[in-house]
Amino acid sequence: MSCDLPIGVFDSGVGGLTVAKEIMKQLPSEQIIYFGDTARVPYGSKSKETVTMYSRQIIRFLLTKDVKAIVIACNTATAFALDTVKEEFNIPIIGVVKPGAKAAAKTTKNGKIGVIGTQGTIASGIYNDVLSGISENLHVYGKACPLFVPLVEEGWIDDPVTREVAARYINELMEKDIDTLVMGCTHYPLLRQVIRQIVGSEIDLVNPAYETARTLRMELMDRGLTSDSKRTCDHMFFVSDGAEKFRNFANTILPCEIIETKDVNIKTFE
Amino acid sequence: MSCDLPIGVFDSGVGGLTVAKEIMKQLPSEQIIYFGDTARVPYGSKSKETVTMYSRQIIRFLLTKDVKAIVIACNTATAFALDTVKEEFNIPIIGVVKPGAKAAAKTTKNGKIGVIGTQGTIASGIYNDVLSGISENLHVYGKACPLFVPLVEEGWIDDPVTREVAARYINELMEKDIDTLVMGCTHYPLLRQVIRQIVGSEIDLVNPAYETARTLRMELMDRGLTSDSKRTCDHMFFVSDGAEKFRNFANTILPCEIIETKDVNIKTFE
Repeated sequence: MSCDLPIGVFDSGVGGLTVAKEIMKQLPSEQIIYFGDTARVPYGSKSKETVTMYSRQIIRFLLTKDVKAIVIACNTATAFALDTVKEEFNIPIIGVVKPGAKAAAKTTKNGKIGVIGTQGTIASGIYNDVLSGISENLHVYGKACPLFVPLVEEGWIDDPVTREVAARYINELMEKDIDTLVMGCTHYPLLRQVIRQIVGSEIDLVNPAYETARTLRMELMDRGLTSDSKRTCDHMFFVSDGAEKFRNFANTILPCEIIETKDVNIKTFE
Repeated sequence: MSCDLPIGVFDSGVGGLTVAKEIMKQLPSEQIIYFGDTARVPYGSKSKETVTMYSRQIIRFLLTKDVKAIVIACNTATAFALDTVKEEFNIPIIGVVKPGAKAAAKTTKNGKIGVIGTQGTIASGIYNDVLSGISENLHVYGKACPLFVPLVEEGWIDDPVTREVAARYINELMEKDIDTLVMGCTHYPLLRQVIRQIVGSEIDLVNPAYETARTLRMELMDRGLTSDSKRTCDHMFFVSDGAEKFRNFANTILPCEIIETKDVNIKTFE
């Protein structure tokens, strides 16, 4: 496999761009092929079977672009589909949950870790499973925050409504005396400032996007797949709906300008 | 066509249940086959092409259940797909927009009508189109309220956050001196009390669900298709994902208990 092949990154929509951004920062020589499943967003309220089927279709699409590795930049899809697709496809596939969980385990001092995420991610108990595999002495408290994704998509980032919603969700976790909070949905780092205001300076915030990019870098190095090309923002973006709207949003987040986003009929990748 | 055949009703998810409920009330002798596209909810932020394709698949599914008429119990799907599917299928198909618009035109005294709905419905300008066809003297002011559907689905119905969000969305319309407000998304009647608190008693609220059931009754009478069976809640419910979750929510809304909701692989109805 050639080192110069691109890396596939996918999410239910725009949230995974926080992961793509971290990859661009930590691995500036790599080309990214991003897919956002905007026709079927959100994944957080959907079933395991449905999200696994969607993930499988997207991986088949990314393989047509000759990617050398795939990052599932979505906690719900990682929780529901990662184990299954790792068995089905012969390519390195990295999720966002394990890197985030490992960082949280390293960070916590009192062993009490809060996790915020979608209904799907929290109900799956995946952070609990991974963290209890790391140490028996960790206590994990999960809280689903289903309004965070729509609030980000409405653009109400620094907003009293968002602060009130965030306080209600997170205060429940604060009462458990957590010292570490995992932002277990790729949209949530976009609300980092609001979340920071609520938790104060004593609680460590873990952003799995950062940890995932680190894990990817190590995985590529282990396999001798690191690219050393000089890149000039030749990343490619595909979505299942609303290419123009996606591009506008992406350009407010990413460090380099996206010129074009293409629509893909994703359900044909059966 | 037999009068005893059922009526197909569909929506992107649970919102259309407000229309199903009105049909059960106004046409108690009719059997309903309901389809909620919970795997692909919400429609409000998706494109016209995508929503039309989804609507077509659902109509094909409902036709396998031998329905005698179809109600598109979703404003976005009505706005985007009604004209197209009416041409493609040889069966009466009724949307929610025209009935709601007609009622608003009858209700208003100063000719200033507000419409709240999803991004798709508002951006389509369909209420404006229909109302300006009724009278040139009507002024229509639209406002997209993308957080309403997630707030309803979170169950924050009578809640200070919902009141703040609703006030922000609706105050903009109040400044236009509207005397009539159309709840242009089938989820919104579930927020009726909050909306009423904001608009006060001087503004008339139009619920297209009620008007749609009336239109359906007249259409069935015109075509001699009215059923006169005695029914005992033999309605049937199908969804594209999360049958159990849907059933629980539906049982909080509907006047009779749903015993079973079935999953359908909707994308195979091409």
